[in-house]
Amino acid sequence: MVYDLIVIGAGPGGYLAAERAGGAGLKTMVIEKKNIGGVCLNEGCVPSKTILNSSKIYEYAKNGNKYGVTCENVIYDQKKVIKRKNIVVKKLVSGIQAVLAKNKVEVVSGKGVIVGKTSEGFEISVNGEQHTCKNLIIATGSEALIPPIPGVKEAFEKSIIVTNREILDLTTIPERLTVIGGGVIGLEMASYFATVGSKVTVIEMMDRIGGYTDREIGTILKGNLEKKGITFLLESKVTKVMDSRVYYEIEGKETSIDSDKILLSIGRRANISNIGLEKLSIAVEKGAIKVDETCKTNIPSVYAIGDINGTSMLAHTAYREAEVAVNNILGNRDIMRYSAIPSVIYTNPEVASVGETEETAKNKGISFEIKKISMNYSGRYMAENEGGDGIAKVLIDKKYKKIIGVQIIGSYASEIIYGAGIMVETEMLVKDLQEIVFPHPTVSEIIREAIFS
Amino acid sequence: MVYDLIVIGAGPGGYLAAERAGGAGLKTMVIEKKNIGGVCLNEGCVPSKTILNSSKIYEYAKNGNKYGVTCENVIYDQKKVIKRKNIVVKKLVSGIQAVLAKNKVEVVSGKGVIVGKTSEGFEISVNGEQHTCKNLIIATGSEALIPPIPGVKEAFEKSIIVTNREILDLTTIPERLTVIGGGVIGLEMASYFATVGSKVTVIEMMDRIGGYTDREIGTILKGNLEKKGITFLLESKVTKVMDSRVYYEIEGKETSIDSDKILLSIGRRANISNIGLEKLSIAVEKGAIKVDETCKTNIPSVYAIGDINGTSMLAHTAYREAEVAVNNILGNRDIMRYSAIPSVIYTNPEVASVGETEETAKNKGISFEIKKISMNYSGRYMAENEGGDGIAKVLIDKKYKKIIGVQIIGSYASEIIYGAGIMVETEMLVKDLQEIVFPHPTVSEIIREAIFS
Repeated sequence: MVYDLIVIGAGPGGYLAAERAGGAGLKTMVIEKKNIGGVCLNEGCVPSKTILNSSKIYEYAKNGNKYGVTCENVIYDQKKVIKRKNIVVKKLVSGIQAVLAKNKVEVVSGKGVIVGKTSEGFEISVNGEQHTCKNLIIATGSEALIPPIPGVKEAFEKSIIVTNREILDLTTIPERLTVIGGGVIGLEMASYFATVGSKVTVIEMMDRIGGYTDREIGTILKGNLEKKGITFLLESKVTKVMDSRVYYEIEGKETSIDSDKILLSIGRRANISNIGLEKLSIAVEKGAIKVDETCKTNIPSVYAIGDINGTSMLAHTAYREAEVAVNNILGNRDIMRYSAIPSVIYTNPEVASVGETEETAKNKGISFEIKKISMNYSGRYMAENEGGDGIAKVLIDKKYKKIIGVQIIGSYASEIIYGAGIMVETEMLVKDLQEIVFPHPTVSEIIREAIFS
Repeated sequence: MVYDLIVIGAGPGGYLAAERAGGAGLKTMVIEKKNIGGVCLNEGCVPSKTILNSSKIYEYAKNGNKYGVTCENVIYDQKKVIKRKNIVVKKLVSGIQAVLAKNKVEVVSGKGVIVGKTSEGFEISVNGEQHTCKNLIIATGSEALIPPIPGVKEAFEKSIIVTNREILDLTTIPERLTVIGGGVIGLEMASYFATVGSKVTVIEMMDRIGGYTDREIGTILKGNLEKKGITFLLESKVTKVMDSRVYYEIEGKETSIDSDKILLSIGRRANISNIGLEKLSIAVEKGAIKVDETCKTNIPSVYAIGDINGTSMLAHTAYREAEVAVNNILGNRDIMRYSAIPSVIYTNPEVASVGETEETAKNKGISFEIKKISMNYSGRYMAENEGGDGIAKVLIDKKYKKIIGVQIIGSYASEIIYGAGIMVETEMLVKDLQEIVFPHPTVSEIIREAIFS
């Protein structure tokens, strides 16, 4: 039998591609070597948000006094939190399995490898069997980068160093945690462990945190996290690891820090090895599969979606890429646009961004103005955030007066940003946004307030 | 001196109108008889959200066990909560005063009354002085309706019956609270007091709660509130009040309930009396000032915005009406549209709605389909809501395939709904919404998930 489509990898991109393809009537198989849902659902975004939610409740209970609520003996049960996280993940995995079954997708557990091409289609091997498909989607994702720094591999093998995967299963709170890499994953975990009791130090090579998050917002976030007791060592380069001791260079001097656990979160690497890309001569560039705007590789009928194509490395990008790939397989032209993909840092406070930032807009030579406003202009923010220092920024291009970017640091930022994404994606004009009625009192109103400021 | 504009009433509509007019260079005065910010800021939306936030923290602390957080002796300090509420309100009032000053608006404290018209303009009296203006905006708001039911007036005078105003200043939690009227205000206060310890009973004339909230969502909300211990007496009519005892008819029988406080929340009445409307022969209809789509009354250059025109009675409607009125005064044609005004019930769980509901769409004869989805399809919702039963509904018109309404019950609904408002206001097509990337994992994704379901 020849499948219309085989998908290798059942992470967000892979399972959604299979779901959409199955739903559209394509004979579809999806192959997953580990867990349905991939890194995002099993060892990434969803489990981290589950435990971050528990830590937020802990924070509320501990600091409720500001809001008129006092309690004693506030205890955080990490074992129970991890247990609950596993249950939540399990339920969600079951949900995806049910949806795949409903869409008549065949799910195979095992490692899918491309073995070649016949006149009938592409040959994929899994568990010693070979399957043929007319279309192929590669969605094998990424894994945490383990850099060739002396001692890192050994410490990782000894479980002193952990990655995003293992840290989400720690059942005891490390007394001291060193985080190598102050990007999104590093910051979320730093925020989590600092909240629940660890002494956290973040070592970051750049002179800022949160990667290319708006610099001013990054600074506000840093201030908030420092208040939680996190120490940031910026412009610091890890030189070696000896057991639990991390050596790093700061301002030209080598120094070191000892801790109980070390989180390595310096980036991720696309899983391009040992999947048989060479069998079809699939082009790879900078460690990722090269694709066009339809997510098609250099080989007709072969697509690569999600982290494996190295474009954005976000689950929601993978979702959309899945749809674009499947639409094109179905003969419905569809293309990816990356200009309005939101990004979120689920720290407390949350940071969310979509579209251009000051830096990217400047680099592109766009003529723009910035509407910046304190979150304290929002009545709800004031009601719910004692001492909060959040801000919102709306970027407007001067030529057409359209919304080209929004950045927020403050409560609910994660849930508000999609609406800003709609503004950016639809190239909404300021004058049209002015006619939109936002509910009062909400934090979301800050966007409307900003454009009038 | 002749003012370009006098605004009577400095609630959300009034202060924003003054702010925008002052900012545009109009010589502007705003007159307020009580508190800048009006009912919304001083005795309505903002104070209620402030205390609801405290109750949510209390709820988290008490029920944290589900999420791995335990604590003992959780105490809710209502006095402190009310004190903090007053501070928050004061800060926000100061903020508005500062913005008015910045926009060169003259703020007068006193009761503004229309006394007539001369060749120079409209004559407004306040504190024994008369002022003349070329344009007039009436924004005198509304107050709680006290119905002519035997005993109600007396119980109100004895402070056994309270309205939205007084209930927000209660420094002790009533052991038993009877809420007359299960609309938005009644439900929010019922939810609040039930959470912090009152035994709450809601008496409602209709066979549903939340007014014309989607019936199914109203039922889910009712179930959630019943779990908090609230008793609902639907299709029940209050016949008299004797001190603390409320008599009501249910299924044809009269019975009664005793309690420590009674909240009267059966609706609001526009403040059209004693403001001199007759001096300009301003037309009134059904107890509210009649306006056209520019918020203009039957008298040229006289506008009525906010609750006083009886159109929507929501602060955010008043905001937009303020802008529409001022734009027209400035000679820039602008009109009100009421088709995409969101509404929110800030209970826990929250309810939010925008555009058509099943009922309104049916009544209008629109051919539509409903995409209904359980909130449990959202990973974040699952992560944060143990045992949650929220849903989202997206209404799509069949002819053009555009989004005509969205209803949500679940966490963050209040902060998510503005984006749905953009969809409805801009008549977004399903195919265009399908191309919007929502951040993962968020609850907001449920809207995208719904349209693919």
